[in-house]
Amino acid sequence: MSKRQLSLGAFFMLPGQHAGAWHDPSTKRENLWNPGYLAELARTAEKGKFDLIFVADGVSAGYTSRAFEYGARVTQFEPLTMFSYLAAVTEKIGFVATASTTYNEPFNLARQFASLDHLSKGRAGWNVVTSTGEEAARNFGKRDQDWPHHLRYERAHEFLDIVKKLWDSWEDDAILYDQEKGVFLDKRKVHRVNYEGRHLSVGGPLNIGRPPQGYPVIVQAGSSEAGRELAARTAEVVFTAWQTLEEAQAFYRDVKGRLAKYGRSPDELKIMPGVFPIIGRTEEEARAKKKYLEELVPLQVGVERLSFQLGVDLSRYDVDGPLPQLPPLEEINGNKSRFELIRNMAEREHLTIRQLIGRVITGRGHWEILGTPEQIADQLQEWFENGAADVFNVMPPVFPESLNEFVELVIPILQERGIFRKEYEGSTLREHLGLERPVNQFARQTVAQN
Amino acid sequence: MSKRQLSLGAFFMLPGQHAGAWHDPSTKRENLWNPGYLAELARTAEKGKFDLIFVADGVSAGYTSRAFEYGARVTQFEPLTMFSYLAAVTEKIGFVATASTTYNEPFNLARQFASLDHLSKGRAGWNVVTSTGEEAARNFGKRDQDWPHHLRYERAHEFLDIVKKLWDSWEDDAILYDQEKGVFLDKRKVHRVNYEGRHLSVGGPLNIGRPPQGYPVIVQAGSSEAGRELAARTAEVVFTAWQTLEEAQAFYRDVKGRLAKYGRSPDELKIMPGVFPIIGRTEEEARAKKKYLEELVPLQVGVERLSFQLGVDLSRYDVDGPLPQLPPLEEINGNKSRFELIRNMAEREHLTIRQLIGRVITGRGHWEILGTPEQIADQLQEWFENGAADVFNVMPPVFPESLNEFVELVIPILQERGIFRKEYEGSTLREHLGLERPVNQFARQTVAQN
Repeated sequence: MSKRQLSLGAFFMLPGQHAGAWHDPSTKRENLWNPGYLAELARTAEKGKFDLIFVADGVSAGYTSRAFEYGARVTQFEPLTMFSYLAAVTEKIGFVATASTTYNEPFNLARQFASLDHLSKGRAGWNVVTSTGEEAARNFGKRDQDWPHHLRYERAHEFLDIVKKLWDSWEDDAILYDQEKGVFLDKRKVHRVNYEGRHLSVGGPLNIGRPPQGYPVIVQAGSSEAGRELAARTAEVVFTAWQTLEEAQAFYRDVKGRLAKYGRSPDELKIMPGVFPIIGRTEEEARAKKKYLEELVPLQVGVERLSFQLGVDLSRYDVDGPLPQLPPLEEINGNKSRFELIRNMAEREHLTIRQLIGRVITGRGHWEILGTPEQIADQLQEWFENGAADVFNVMPPVFPESLNEFVELVIPILQERGIFRKEYEGSTLREHLGLERPVNQFARQTVAQN
Repeated sequence: MSKRQLSLGAFFMLPGQHAGAWHDPSTKRENLWNPGYLAELARTAEKGKFDLIFVADGVSAGYTSRAFEYGARVTQFEPLTMFSYLAAVTEKIGFVATASTTYNEPFNLARQFASLDHLSKGRAGWNVVTSTGEEAARNFGKRDQDWPHHLRYERAHEFLDIVKKLWDSWEDDAILYDQEKGVFLDKRKVHRVNYEGRHLSVGGPLNIGRPPQGYPVIVQAGSSEAGRELAARTAEVVFTAWQTLEEAQAFYRDVKGRLAKYGRSPDELKIMPGVFPIIGRTEEEARAKKKYLEELVPLQVGVERLSFQLGVDLSRYDVDGPLPQLPPLEEINGNKSRFELIRNMAEREHLTIRQLIGRVITGRGHWEILGTPEQIADQLQEWFENGAADVFNVMPPVFPESLNEFVELVIPILQERGIFRKEYEGSTLREHLGLERPVNQFARQTVAQN
């Protein structure tokens, strides 16, 4: 029997995951919105046989952040258009686009993801997020009224239910295209959705046929209690952030343990921690690279980023002292799990604000691994083989170099060890990840009634 | 001085503009959502030096139409994802995507169009439509409450103002990318929008840099009184439908005459009638082709289509008799100008319902021209040179044949006559159409204040 296989995501945050990336002379201003450069990066990831490219997203420019001028959040292509473009220049690699359930219409989003899945012949995935923050709210007519955490998740549940119904609204064999009889479709196989929720109501059917994958792969990124429950009920991949093997294992067990009550088996949900690799030919070279990148980032940017993640203005405190008293978890309306992760890391390791900034500007809270290609591979393998990860979302510090290094130096080692593919075997993202194509809920009902 | 140049759009309604198109054995079921086939068609249009590809769109499947099963409205790719895909496989041709101001959020749509404009290096255009119909309303939580005509247009005005402000929210030189000083951008050149309208409120700025074209080209498709006014105030191309030279000339004069009150010159708005060409090696062959296509369409489909366009259920009337009494124009909430066009055609030519159906299922109300390639070119040239058109939106009856014929047989004649380009001279859609790149409204204010 063949070994259990690792999956890999390439996390595209341009010009790099490290907050210092854009300061590095190897990155160029003209590559900010350069589709040719983007295509080159995607082909590199495909050459490395990555399962997927992943993009994070938000619906505000970060103008109200004090670090705005310092490139705290760099503008980027909109994910659905970007991946539709990349569908034309790649053949196998999957595409996970982040999109918000808070500030989209389910009909529009279901349709665009279905369209991307058709354009890419079954390579689309959706990272489902809820959006937070007053700047985002104001971009959608909400004035300064941010959504409370529980209502965002309630809406997200409804949103997902509707979108899946819309994807199912055309059964796979609904279109007859019978030129002889002049009948285009079998109306019994096209379904209204008629969903009436507390937040959302949609009639349907969708105006595009069922996606090649049935549904694009559903990814979920929240690791709070509400996020875990949404994931257990609806997600196929969970994107998460952990600093230690023990924490990652606990999360892995917890989320997989929630599946049974929804009638799902543990294999139906893949756990995908983010990982931030700093690769050197020697460990020393890797350490020097880390130090170099850290020094590129103005202290002010680090203070602002940490303040944002903790929901506390740290600009009034001594950076060489400890964190001030933090608010209780219940009062955090943003990313609750990221807040907990950073708080726990500070307490566990007795870090000063400056030291904590060093952690946050690198992997932005994700697992940082450093060393030679062998050491990187060892650490990934350890988590993979000890119940902490099924997939890693690999976050190159600076593009394109860090991606190139990972593809050229680390992937061959994982391949030699027999835990990562040498060639794509399937052609859809579901096939890469080992996920089943979902049965159409309306077709299932028809069968059940017979 | 060089001759005034014609512009051409390729209207992509797959498998063809003719209602009978999908019944023809040359069209294939497997091409319904086949990106490779789509790419091939786009390359053909580019080979023909078309200015742009145009796609119509709607936000419902047409399920409630009695002609649904007969392929009255065929599902298609979503336009923004489709054109992002095509941006990667073409180099020069422009892309006009239809999108609704009624059922989108301005922040999301501004961003996706900006992204498409970056991905295509300045080849995007937006056909601005308002959406009507109960089925569409129900897909966006409105239950059965359709929007009244004047409110749809009021929202459209606000929507366009906001979207332009969002595109301008980053001045062209806002991003410094100063790696030495660690300053990413010049905050004085990034602007909040802070728009508070009756229907829409948006804070801004957008989270993507200004589109290469400043704004994607603004196309507008309504020809009602409200539509003409919206066009005169905001559009750069008006897509319209006329049956006779005189009507088209009157429309051309009327709309161009409205520009002055908005401080615009007649050249800033191009008039683009739709044209439905049936090409034969002889006129007789063209007539036979028209007849063949008409006979492919079930009568029921024709009755339903005409009923929809007139807002009257015609299934109870004798198809060989005249139209029944029609409702007054004020009661039409859908496409008012299309209603008038069909009503006038029926009155002018004393057509029976069946004869009228013959007109409607072919060009769907657009100008039908029939004959040899020379005759087709003659008719286009007549409208172009007599104040009726600047651009034609060419609607091939059946893909790919009718597009191929137009490219191979008609375009060379227009080129020989010196009224159509032999090679692209510019690289953006604005350059193809001879439209200026808009000045940034915030930069203009800054200059004015100095």
